[in-house]
Amino acid sequence: MSTPSSLQHLIDSLRVLPGVGPKSASRMAYHLLQRDQTGADSLAHAIMTALATLKHCQLCNTFTESDICEICADENRTHEQLCVVEMPTDLLMVEQTLAYHGLYFVLMGRLSPLDGIGPKDIAFSRLLERASDGIVKEVILSTNFTVEGEATAHYLAEMLRARGLTVSRIARGLPVGGELEHADPSTLAQALVERRTLAG
Amino acid sequence: MSTPSSLQHLIDSLRVLPGVGPKSASRMAYHLLQRDQTGADSLAHAIMTALATLKHCQLCNTFTESDICEICADENRTHEQLCVVEMPTDLLMVEQTLAYHGLYFVLMGRLSPLDGIGPKDIAFSRLLERASDGIVKEVILSTNFTVEGEATAHYLAEMLRARGLTVSRIARGLPVGGELEHADPSTLAQALVERRTLAG
Repeated sequence: MSTPSSLQHLIDSLRVLPGVGPKSASRMAYHLLQRDQTGADSLAHAIMTALATLKHCQLCNTFTESDICEICADENRTHEQLCVVEMPTDLLMVEQTLAYHGLYFVLMGRLSPLDGIGPKDIAFSRLLERASDGIVKEVILSTNFTVEGEATAHYLAEMLRARGLTVSRIARGLPVGGELEHADPSTLAQALVERRTLAG
Repeated sequence: MSTPSSLQHLIDSLRVLPGVGPKSASRMAYHLLQRDQTGADSLAHAIMTALATLKHCQLCNTFTESDICEICADENRTHEQLCVVEMPTDLLMVEQTLAYHGLYFVLMGRLSPLDGIGPKDIAFSRLLERASDGIVKEVILSTNFTVEGEATAHYLAEMLRARGLTVSRIARGLPVGGELEHADPSTLAQALVERRTLAG
């Protein structure tokens, strides 16, 4: 007795999803076939539609259905600032602050040598080209404060400064409403190092 | 700025998978689109092929590509014993023991009132019909020893005994190679209750 080939193929195919091992893949396959065939069908179609319609914005590299995304096409935004983020979700988080009115560039990843992701796998050359358009003055590096995000920011800062651009990094420190008693030591240390002089 | 509709639809569709919440769905969608478009395409096709080709074995209810599965079609197996399991993976586990030569019935689930799964959502009536074919003498209930699996076994035992069939349940006890020191108290208690008289 063996698993029917189309079932085995479905289980194997589900493993392309990040974080899905053999046990979860098999659980997912049985769930789709036994409990939610409508959902399974709609998932298959959603994947095909997304693959067919989504492309990268020619300016900021985020996913869009047109050539230029809504934000890049917005004439009312500051075209002199470029906020560099790792993923489209990070862009949405920055937008939610309502505190930024410039443009974006989405790397679609981060440097991560351990996962085999080097500068060529991320849109670095497109970012350099985009930032050298003569209009952009400041690049705000907003990659995550993880080891990979920090490495990516350092690497980019060097290359962007060499092109005469102002490069900044979003601040580290205590969260709004944060208490010193509950801060972790590294964050508190960083908050001390990055302290701001207050005008008297 | 909003997420493009085909991307949002993909994220929503991925949530049909068990254990996938909004954050994982979004991570999966970006992974498929950014890192593995080939895998995504093959996943969509695997789902469609599986939906189109897989059906339930007319005898044992497991997934198969033909009308009757390999096991049920095997003339060399004992047709008088029916081993009832929850899922096709459980059937494969029993097969791996090489200790069982009868036939199977796969419930494709378990009673789980909290999840809204009642007797009608599981192939109970098909099992009763299958077990009443006049050839089957013994039904071995091999549902899991979870609360739901136990409830399912109790429910089935009553209905099957009413039809004059011998009903048995796989044994609970210490694992092979198990030490009393490391057994959990409930398993040890059950091993005492279900002790076997040894021939002198």
